[in-house]
Amino acid sequence: MREFDLLRHIYRSNDRLDRAVGIPPGDDMGMIRFGGGEVLAAVDQLVAGRHVRIETTSVELVGRKAITRSLSDIAAMAARPLCTLVAATLPPEFGEDRARQLFESMRRTCERFECPLIGGDLAFHGDPDHPLVCSVTVLAEPGPTPPVLRSGARPGDTLYVTGQLGGTMLDDGSGHHLTFDPRITEALMLAELLGDRLHAMIDLSDGLGRDADHIAEASEVKIVIDAARLPCRGNASWKDALQNGEDYELCFAASGSVPSEVRGVPITPVGEVLSGETGELPARLCVRDGDTLREAGELGWQHEA
Amino acid sequence: MREFDLLRHIYRSNDRLDRAVGIPPGDDMGMIRFGGGEVLAAVDQLVAGRHVRIETTSVELVGRKAITRSLSDIAAMAARPLCTLVAATLPPEFGEDRARQLFESMRRTCERFECPLIGGDLAFHGDPDHPLVCSVTVLAEPGPTPPVLRSGARPGDTLYVTGQLGGTMLDDGSGHHLTFDPRITEALMLAELLGDRLHAMIDLSDGLGRDADHIAEASEVKIVIDAARLPCRGNASWKDALQNGEDYELCFAASGSVPSEVRGVPITPVGEVLSGETGELPARLCVRDGDTLREAGELGWQHEA
Repeated sequence: MREFDLLRHIYRSNDRLDRAVGIPPGDDMGMIRFGGGEVLAAVDQLVAGRHVRIETTSVELVGRKAITRSLSDIAAMAARPLCTLVAATLPPEFGEDRARQLFESMRRTCERFECPLIGGDLAFHGDPDHPLVCSVTVLAEPGPTPPVLRSGARPGDTLYVTGQLGGTMLDDGSGHHLTFDPRITEALMLAELLGDRLHAMIDLSDGLGRDADHIAEASEVKIVIDAARLPCRGNASWKDALQNGEDYELCFAASGSVPSEVRGVPITPVGEVLSGETGELPARLCVRDGDTLREAGELGWQHEA
Repeated sequence: MREFDLLRHIYRSNDRLDRAVGIPPGDDMGMIRFGGGEVLAAVDQLVAGRHVRIETTSVELVGRKAITRSLSDIAAMAARPLCTLVAATLPPEFGEDRARQLFESMRRTCERFECPLIGGDLAFHGDPDHPLVCSVTVLAEPGPTPPVLRSGARPGDTLYVTGQLGGTMLDDGSGHHLTFDPRITEALMLAELLGDRLHAMIDLSDGLGRDADHIAEASEVKIVIDAARLPCRGNASWKDALQNGEDYELCFAASGSVPSEVRGVPITPVGEVLSGETGELPARLCVRDGDTLREAGELGWQHEA
């Protein structure tokens, strides 16, 4: 992923990032330490045409998704929401009424998930063909445990996902990707229940295939996903569940006993974490399909594209 | 200003913004209280064609300005920088090399002003004609005093500006607006020196005319600016100094003695703060030009456009 590479580059070249930076770029949120406190922060963008079809989606749902995508990053760290800031650049024909509806939807969504909107910036493009771009920054504080990173998975852990995967964006642009609730409470409950047995976590935006690979890479382990165990949404195939993305569920690596649900949301073991040295595995991320062990890279999505 | 209206609307309609919100939307930064700490946050956008001419400006300076504009909001509150997050959507032909240069310039600027980059998001537009949009979020902690708001100006205060005003963007797009240093240290020194006599402050992005009016409105006072006292940059006229914008200097209202410079940056008294009830003034913001008292609105800029 270009973004990931860039951020890694930024971190490597920043010799003077001092100890105030508790979590550097590259995880779901960064963290800064100051005056005895710790604050996590992350930014995500919603670009019309990429993340949402502006022609067929209500302004209400566009605003909702802009916020919930970013809140999902808070869930990924098992952190507690603090506040939100929004910057939007809109096409000129969007108009003030719809701009107001958009901000109102974002405000309500922020309020619902207890992450109040405390600032924003609004601009209009000069050119009517330029697309809506909405960037949402969220701040959070650590939850019951230190923030759960991508890098903590250990050989012997089991890999789990919450909810169901795949088929989140229907042909007409609607679907779960517009209406999901970020798993903030579920993540806090898992952190509370599992404590230091919750080793690594990420939210599923790029698809389990890519996102589990982020855990494998950051943790320097190998991961084998069992295709037969993937909880597929509706008619989604196991390949859809791995590739589609926009699930906004949690994927985590943990040891020991893990409940089969939290707050009615199913938790499914979908794979195992093995040593990075395991020679018999053909790749960092593999999928067991019956008796066949396949390299995840063969399944058609780009890992570092 | 559309943005200001929208944010005001958001605040009014948000009945449940609880006491955790220390500073609601509408000032240069918002503030959230949590676990004994306080964090300020603000977001600003740099849009190609609006804030910078991408064709004639080096990637280096585009990145620098994206960061320094947001850091100027920290100065406006007399707060201390904590960290920065960046979200950029780039035209596809921008390319990875220039994207890397852009982020590298932003990272270095963040480091220089002690506000390290801890997170980012990068996307490319699908359409080559879509413009670069860069949104920068900055976090800060309170400085030596509580954050200095726009709303604290009192009748009897003097209005001051730092540095020089007007003529910041030359015909070829270059100029002070690309190379300025945000007045963070100067603001902290003023807060240290003046303490609770530093009543209100804003940074000058929209031009002294509009920005002083924001102070007048938020503080429910009237302000008279003395045209003859305006410190004009180069060949700028006093009207330029009021209207041009993009100065990124500080404008503040204070009582008592104020030094004539800090760190070599001149501080100039440019006006006086009067009661909001003062009947003889034709408008909330007036300009004294010799013996004539003019409504600022007559001078040609839009106040709430």
